[in-house]
Amino acid sequence: MPGRNGESRGNRGRLLVTCPDRPGIVATVSQFLFARGANIVHSDQHSTDPFGGQFFLRVEFELPGLVASAAEVERDFAPIADRYAMQWRLTLASVPKRLAIFVSKERHCLQELLWQRQAGDLPAEIALIAGNHALLAPVAAAWGVPFHHVPGDDRVAAEATQEEILRAAGVDTIVLARYMQILSPPFVARWQHRIINIHHSFLPAFAGAKPYHQAYARGVKLIGATAHYVTADLDAGPIIEQDVQRVDHRQSPDDLRRLGRQIERTVLARAVAWHVEDRVLVHGNKTVVFA
Amino acid sequence: MPGRNGESRGNRGRLLVTCPDRPGIVATVSQFLFARGANIVHSDQHSTDPFGGQFFLRVEFELPGLVASAAEVERDFAPIADRYAMQWRLTLASVPKRLAIFVSKERHCLQELLWQRQAGDLPAEIALIAGNHALLAPVAAAWGVPFHHVPGDDRVAAEATQEEILRAAGVDTIVLARYMQILSPPFVARWQHRIINIHHSFLPAFAGAKPYHQAYARGVKLIGATAHYVTADLDAGPIIEQDVQRVDHRQSPDDLRRLGRQIERTVLARAVAWHVEDRVLVHGNKTVVFA
Amino acid sequence: MPGRNGESRGNRGRLLVTCPDRPGIVATVSQFLFARGANIVHSDQHSTDPFGGQFFLRVEFELPGLVASAAEVERDFAPIADRYAMQWRLTLASVPKRLAIFVSKERHCLQELLWQRQAGDLPAEIALIAGNHALLAPVAAAWGVPFHHVPGDDRVAAEATQEEILRAAGVDTIVLARYMQILSPPFVARWQHRIINIHHSFLPAFAGAKPYHQAYARGVKLIGATAHYVTADLDAGPIIEQDVQRVDHRQSPDDLRRLGRQIERTVLARAVAWHVEDRVLVHGNKTVVFA
Amino acid sequence: MPGRNGESRGNRGRLLVTCPDRPGIVATVSQFLFARGANIVHSDQHSTDPFGGQFFLRVEFELPGLVASAAEVERDFAPIADRYAMQWRLTLASVPKRLAIFVSKERHCLQELLWQRQAGDLPAEIALIAGNHALLAPVAAAWGVPFHHVPGDDRVAAEATQEEILRAAGVDTIVLARYMQILSPPFVARWQHRIINIHHSFLPAFAGAKPYHQAYARGVKLIGATAHYVTADLDAGPIIEQDVQRVDHRQSPDDLRRLGRQIERTVLARAVAWHVEDRVLVHGNKTVVFA
Repeated sequence: MPGRNGESRGNRGRLLVTCPDRPGIVATVSQFLFARGANIVHSDQHSTDPFGGQFFLRVEFELPGLVASAAEVERDFAPIADRYAMQWRLTLASVPKRLAIFVSKERHCLQELLWQRQAGDLPAEIALIAGNHALLAPVAAAWGVPFHHVPGDDRVAAEATQEEILRAAGVDTIVLARYMQILSPPFVARWQHRIINIHHSFLPAFAGAKPYHQAYARGVKLIGATAHYVTADLDAGPIIEQDVQRVDHRQSPDDLRRLGRQIERTVLARAVAWHVEDRVLVHGNKTVVFA
Repeated sequence: MPGRNGESRGNRGRLLVTCPDRPGIVATVSQFLFARGANIVHSDQHSTDPFGGQFFLRVEFELPGLVASAAEVERDFAPIADRYAMQWRLTLASVPKRLAIFVSKERHCLQELLWQRQAGDLPAEIALIAGNHALLAPVAAAWGVPFHHVPGDDRVAAEATQEEILRAAGVDTIVLARYMQILSPPFVARWQHRIINIHHSFLPAFAGAKPYHQAYARGVKLIGATAHYVTADLDAGPIIEQDVQRVDHRQSPDDLRRLGRQIERTVLARAVAWHVEDRVLVHGNKTVVFA
Repeated sequence: MPGRNGESRGNRGRLLVTCPDRPGIVATVSQFLFARGANIVHSDQHSTDPFGGQFFLRVEFELPGLVASAAEVERDFAPIADRYAMQWRLTLASVPKRLAIFVSKERHCLQELLWQRQAGDLPAEIALIAGNHALLAPVAAAWGVPFHHVPGDDRVAAEATQEEILRAAGVDTIVLARYMQILSPPFVARWQHRIINIHHSFLPAFAGAKPYHQAYARGVKLIGATAHYVTADLDAGPIIEQDVQRVDHRQSPDDLRRLGRQIERTVLARAVAWHVEDRVLVHGNKTVVFA
Repeated sequence: MPGRNGESRGNRGRLLVTCPDRPGIVATVSQFLFARGANIVHSDQHSTDPFGGQFFLRVEFELPGLVASAAEVERDFAPIADRYAMQWRLTLASVPKRLAIFVSKERHCLQELLWQRQAGDLPAEIALIAGNHALLAPVAAAWGVPFHHVPGDDRVAAEATQEEILRAAGVDTIVLARYMQILSPPFVARWQHRIINIHHSFLPAFAGAKPYHQAYARGVKLIGATAHYVTADLDAGPIIEQDVQRVDHRQSPDDLRRLGRQIERTVLARAVAWHVEDRVLVHGNKTVVFA
């Protein structure tokens, strides 16, 4: 699949770096890439404080033959990374992330991801769909994606099954597309910063259950949705994206739910797209998004 | 001052009605106005439930000679109102509401209201400005509006002084334009649904102190502001208007404060304009806004 | 299908009125409905000028037994309508409009309408899909909607075929969901105010072909979409709804097209929903939307 | 004045570069800065096409003693710039741009800029205000800014006077804050990319006179404003920023003008702030904005 700006994905790499800020990082990294013949295509950086803060860098580059030479590039970059105490990774645009989508009964978020994938707007593979209900199995079938029904009554058993399925399918990232089960802290810990949830409110407002009813009861003039990484602390993980929609006194809780579905699927799709393009870096309980 | 659509304000009335919903209300009210020779210019209605809910009506009409005949119109409408158990009021567009603006040290919300008043966009009189600090006295002076410095250390004394000032100036409505003192429950009760506050967050998120710091710490992707009627329960009164602004990882708390100033003044000005045009009806802890 | 606010649709009627504004219209109409035992559920009105302008009214009401008595209600209302020189119609919520969706090769707008229909968010029947290409036939098949392939090379023949198909299926309204053929003036005239098109720009900017390329070339900072009724004058019909999306220098024309797809489908779906709920009244080349 | 993130402005420099894209630019520039002891604080780059496109770079850096050494830095950078065929400039945050604001009779845009300057949100000096009418002289006086009344009847004479005034005050940038005179092509050419205009529509829609009347006549559902650099071709210069506001059938042309004032001043203030912080680079008839 050709990506934005028509590049051939085969040679496209992304270098992600987080380290303590100090002079020379950009000079060193860009010199390293230049010396190997790479052409920097996009580069974004951020520092929480140029004097002693945390530094974040995302460099997207073209390097002929990268697929073959990636391991060598990584090996050569390692000493530089050590010198600057970097957390880092190199990813290849030619190796799309593999997603598992967890669902319950509501289909709109799932459907949006399937569409965007089909339209070529979500550069990832949807490896499988897993539901604690079987209701959405036909949707999966219609799109030719494997569906696993994993009832959630026995959480320990369910998570063991899920882990097996995920491993078998080589999944990188889990998307909770209105998945109404709570994952255990150990499960969440194993998938740290690799589970994206959509919460149907503008967090931190209306965390917990039935946010549209809460919003209705409070009489807010905007409703929202929040995509975030899942942590052990429910609805409190690092926020990736949020958006809102204007409402007024005329909407019933049902109307809010209906309007909210539009925001939920848009916000989730945006967050997943940024994640799979390695545009999201986590810093404590916050994100840096190089959108 | 000529209003929207160029009407002459002298003959323009607004009838505001809240009552239990049942058939015939609109027919009766519109018949009443028609029989007196009034021309309905705008009419908005809302029912929380057409079968046994609460009904809200705002009718704006032109009636030649209304200024002289208003008392008579009210007298004649009273039996109708009784029959339907209406809470109601008739207001005249030719009698603008008189505002007191309470301030502390920040000037942006005050300035926005003064400017919109001057531009003819806020159909109200700004009767006075009262500050618990004297810092903004020169702003008041520059615009020719009386300024009262009422230090807040002794709240009982301060509120007694404020009440006196408000009474002397014939004030209808108090606007808290980033006023950083808490008003006592008795004071709030006396001015029920007539004190408008601007809170610098998207409530109910980040109620309480330092909302921009809270927003920064949580890493939200949108910041907001909320205009609401003041109740004894801090930051929990009926919301009149809210809006948000997109932010990202690059903004410091200071940046959020700076960006937030723009939303705060816009949201507050909108809420005040709706209030002074009798477009806001309160229902429990929520509002019906006929904007 | 139960509608908003849980009403039973069987008894729900909508009265749409356009006439010269003069006193007494609301009193007369509401008295007429009250006398028959109807309960007004929503009422919206607008006047271009309360003194001699055009008046627009949409009343939604509950009247037990309406399905059986609708013809009688219409007969009784006719003299009132005559007296005020009204253009008017009575529609029943229990009789959903029947849509034909015309498509070419792009699927996103079609898919959004199908999905919203399934989710219960679009209260209409999708009677058929007609394409000048056969490409989207499988989408129609997957959703169980009849698909007609009507090649457009010979416009006269094509429109004759289309008219036949539309008549056979009892279609009320045609939606051009990125349909890339131009309809003849006679066809458009026959379906006046009953063909909705989505144009992929913020009209009147970038009318005509390739609006995203035009937007890219001009360097705008927002792109948009416009849903409008089709008239003989291309891209110039009455606008029903518009929305925009922020872009910047980084987006290629392809990126604009990709981002634009999201706005196009949202704007079109909103416009179609308003149309099928009789919320759109046309006035010259403009619309009054009681959303 | 301390800037964002609390840096001391004395040592803060901005390097702006435009050149044909080819590998090694970032490596070379960042190496140059690193070697001199500079700490890169922000860095933004863009390429219209990584293979043979145009490359844009904005680097903000801290370099102790920069005020004293700036000339030396420039001298040393010149050979690098030559090698890459760069158009470039080095600016010091400690030397704020000097603005002239041209006005006619409407005050809202002028007032917004004066406020934002006072609030510390516009890091520039407002050197003078010039009006073809004298109406806003008192506003200038109230804020202590020199006002020049330059009647526009004789354009040649007026522009000669304006040039003199601008030179005397050391002005860098002219802001047309609803200035209703047309500047001559030679004047515009002398101030290329240094005159910012606010047009009260979402360009390219409704270029020319009376855009709110045009918008009303067309029945658009959003109105907008556009800040752009002035070129000889009226309303067709490079767009810096745009925004819109939702409207509906209820707004008269006067209402649109009133609502539009809010967008106009917001959009203009944003564009001016970006310009004075050297965040806007012009590329043909488009802009790259590193906001």
